[in-house]
Amino acid sequence: MTTPDSGPSRWEKQESSLLARTRIFDLDQIRYRHPKRGAARDFVVIQPPDWVNVLALTSAHELVLVRQFRFGIDDFALEIPGGMIDAGESPLVAGARELLEETGYEGGEIKSLGTVRPNPAIQSNRCHIALATDVDLVGPTSWDTDEEIEVFLRPVDEVLQLARSGGITHSLVLNALFLFEPWWREMRARGV
Amino acid sequence: MTTPDSGPSRWEKQESSLLARTRIFDLDQIRYRHPKRGAARDFVVIQPPDWVNVLALTSAHELVLVRQFRFGIDDFALEIPGGMIDAGESPLVAGARELLEETGYEGGEIKSLGTVRPNPAIQSNRCHIALATDVDLVGPTSWDTDEEIEVFLRPVDEVLQLARSGGITHSLVLNALFLFEPWWREMRARGV
Repeated sequence: MTTPDSGPSRWEKQESSLLARTRIFDLDQIRYRHPKRGAARDFVVIQPPDWVNVLALTSAHELVLVRQFRFGIDDFALEIPGGMIDAGESPLVAGARELLEETGYEGGEIKSLGTVRPNPAIQSNRCHIALATDVDLVGPTSWDTDEEIEVFLRPVDEVLQLARSGGITHSLVLNALFLFEPWWREMRARGV
Repeated sequence: MTTPDSGPSRWEKQESSLLARTRIFDLDQIRYRHPKRGAARDFVVIQPPDWVNVLALTSAHELVLVRQFRFGIDDFALEIPGGMIDAGESPLVAGARELLEETGYEGGEIKSLGTVRPNPAIQSNRCHIALATDVDLVGPTSWDTDEEIEVFLRPVDEVLQLARSGGITHSLVLNALFLFEPWWREMRARGV
């Protein structure tokens, strides 16, 4: 898709200032200038590191789910393992690490299913979605401070049904299932 | 799913303080107390109003897409219409309003496909997903300050293919397509 002259303009990024620094993200105020109108406006941008979420599939075609208390929604959420990518760490290495730390599961193979933008209007980072196949429980969990995670397995089709009936509402987890579904159907069609 | 004694605890919300107020959200610091350990910890929570995104389908089975510059990612994003729900406004009324304002399209019927949580770990709000059917171009757009939107139609199957091949990366737009897909397949199976 091109940007015709009549289409939306690419605003020009100018100076940025820090509004707040938290454990999870910086909140910046960034000045943008409209290239045609010349007007400058300030916009706030949430700047977290990139994230990775992992669909971990056992050889019995079950997915590893996690359930934990989430402070953003002041409630429990049903999710897949994942977390922040450390500086210099690749998304797949981070995914395998988070899977092992949060659940004790480790996979035979891990690959990328794609990358999404959690919130393009106000947030800068990417969330990578990884698929780990033939995972097995290999050891104890190793949770961060404040983490308490219930880990359990559910058949893929039950997870998809949960996701489409309001049982899973976490946006990035639903993204992972959306990108996973064609792979899953193809695998099933091949009778694997 | 129950919360057994051995499972993750529900933290108790205590006092909250405002870290930053922006046009789009408040950033709060909220103190939580762990019910068993007794320890208190502060967590930051992004508090926007609820949002609504609208899949708008024409009678020719095309979806209304919008493309605009997004300051969060400093780039253009391909999306569906949507926006913030005003105080006291219902999600479907807000969806029909945003659709009309951003694109000039209006629908015969609008219904809910579900609700997702954009980011349970650090963000409080919900995003409602609406489906408007038999939409038509009925009038001019009415953009907010700073909005410049390219509006166009694409066949549903082309949009789904784009979404699964990296052409659409906006998390909440992918959520809408995930919840829409079974409805779409059923409609196709009925030969509508």
